[in-house]
Amino acid sequence: MGQEAPTLYIVGLGLSPANITAEALEVIRSVDVVFLEMYTSKGPAEFMDQLRSIRGDLIQVSRRDLEDMNSEIIMRVLEGGRNAALLVIGDPMIATTHAVIAVIAKRRGFNVRVINSVSIVCAVLSQLGLSPYKLGPVATITYPRMGVLSMRAYEVLSDNLIRGLHTILLLDIKDDGSFMSASEAVELLKKMEDNGKLGIISKDLAVVYAARIGWGNQSIKVSTIEDVPNIGETPHTIVIPGLLNPVEQEYLVNVLGADEELIRRHMAFINKMVKRGPLV
Amino acid sequence: MGQEAPTLYIVGLGLSPANITAEALEVIRSVDVVFLEMYTSKGPAEFMDQLRSIRGDLIQVSRRDLEDMNSEIIMRVLEGGRNAALLVIGDPMIATTHAVIAVIAKRRGFNVRVINSVSIVCAVLSQLGLSPYKLGPVATITYPRMGVLSMRAYEVLSDNLIRGLHTILLLDIKDDGSFMSASEAVELLKKMEDNGKLGIISKDLAVVYAARIGWGNQSIKVSTIEDVPNIGETPHTIVIPGLLNPVEQEYLVNVLGADEELIRRHMAFINKMVKRGPLV
Repeated sequence: MGQEAPTLYIVGLGLSPANITAEALEVIRSVDVVFLEMYTSKGPAEFMDQLRSIRGDLIQVSRRDLEDMNSEIIMRVLEGGRNAALLVIGDPMIATTHAVIAVIAKRRGFNVRVINSVSIVCAVLSQLGLSPYKLGPVATITYPRMGVLSMRAYEVLSDNLIRGLHTILLLDIKDDGSFMSASEAVELLKKMEDNGKLGIISKDLAVVYAARIGWGNQSIKVSTIEDVPNIGETPHTIVIPGLLNPVEQEYLVNVLGADEELIRRHMAFINKMVKRGPLV
Repeated sequence: MGQEAPTLYIVGLGLSPANITAEALEVIRSVDVVFLEMYTSKGPAEFMDQLRSIRGDLIQVSRRDLEDMNSEIIMRVLEGGRNAALLVIGDPMIATTHAVIAVIAKRRGFNVRVINSVSIVCAVLSQLGLSPYKLGPVATITYPRMGVLSMRAYEVLSDNLIRGLHTILLLDIKDDGSFMSASEAVELLKKMEDNGKLGIISKDLAVVYAARIGWGNQSIKVSTIEDVPNIGETPHTIVIPGLLNPVEQEYLVNVLGADEELIRRHMAFINKMVKRGPLV
């Protein structure tokens, strides 16, 4: 009685060990028990090695632990009067899972603190020189589930393009923990076009293919939907720009090596989309 | 000849000294010359003290240095064969200025590397438990310039609300370096409503007021446009949610202390907006 309730820290790790913040490091070092989940988003294996070198007693938790078992493994630590940290790749909360855990902990009377880090959403925009003032909703391209291909990413992309907005397409993670590649994602986008027939997956689009954002061997190439460039190992991210202002165009051409003619075709295509407006 | 071209590092510092990443620290410590700009975004004074303790020979640059003088002060360092870093608050590139500098450096044959950090855009979403899958374009509420109040933020908000999307409203910085407060921003939103008359700045909106995101004394309160809560010192950020899924609603109520009745009114209001669709 009278003592302060234990705290659950939900700690973003960023995209690579180089992204770990001073604050995250302090929490990882000082908190009583440290959990790590790598299924809503996944870091390459080197990430885990680095974390284990900071905190050897790290406990990795599964989807089953957090979702099916209502995070009891974490709640038991808090109920025992100790502080706990749940480490997640990127910035916390992109996954609904993290918000659910925060709600459970708070309802049981514990403190909750979210420690921010580098998010793929903001990091990829920065690396591409694209403005957040024209960022539309983010979408994830998912593998077909039980034979059904979700059209969600296609709908979001269409909605963004006719408004001239940029679209960040995150790529799914398989149950075995492997990442969807840009080539697989493009195949799925083409299937969505076959189904949706809005004419948005066009050879005139400038498509930005990014790999390992935040890592030393990050790779970014601007190409088309017909020509998926070699960007090396996953994780991959695809960005389809909307209308580009002059500085955004210069950045893509001069800093990222985009073909000027492709950028001109892209602008003409997006302008046509914006004029056409919603088809449905 | 034969030696590698110098590199310009554009380094995000995050929102507070606690956000500084391992990678940023390494660049700040090892690069030949370090520049800092605090006019596109500004850190509280403690930030500067912290940076000076890491790097005493830090050179602060002004808007005049970077924009009117085409960043010559930085280019001269690179042309002299030395590496340079430009430190910026948050994640680089949100300001067009940083993209322009990258383009200038690249055109002159230098390497450019962008070092990501915590961005207010992603950090505020995480702290509020809101999904990036429903984030609409970001807007900035600006002070009237030469007596003219820009309606841009109002238009973006309107466009987002009728799509059920969340809106992050960043607040302007005065020429003297002081931040716009949430109360000033709300007064400007009300003036925009008087001009625009779309009925979107309503007492039924749930408005999230956030202060000093990323700092130890961060404060977040959910209230209405009629009742601006005391959230302490600037910097402030305002978020107007769109349609909230059940987890987002629970997060606002249980973790951030929002009034349940207000969330119900908000949902009814947004649903009405979404059904109504564009007025123009």
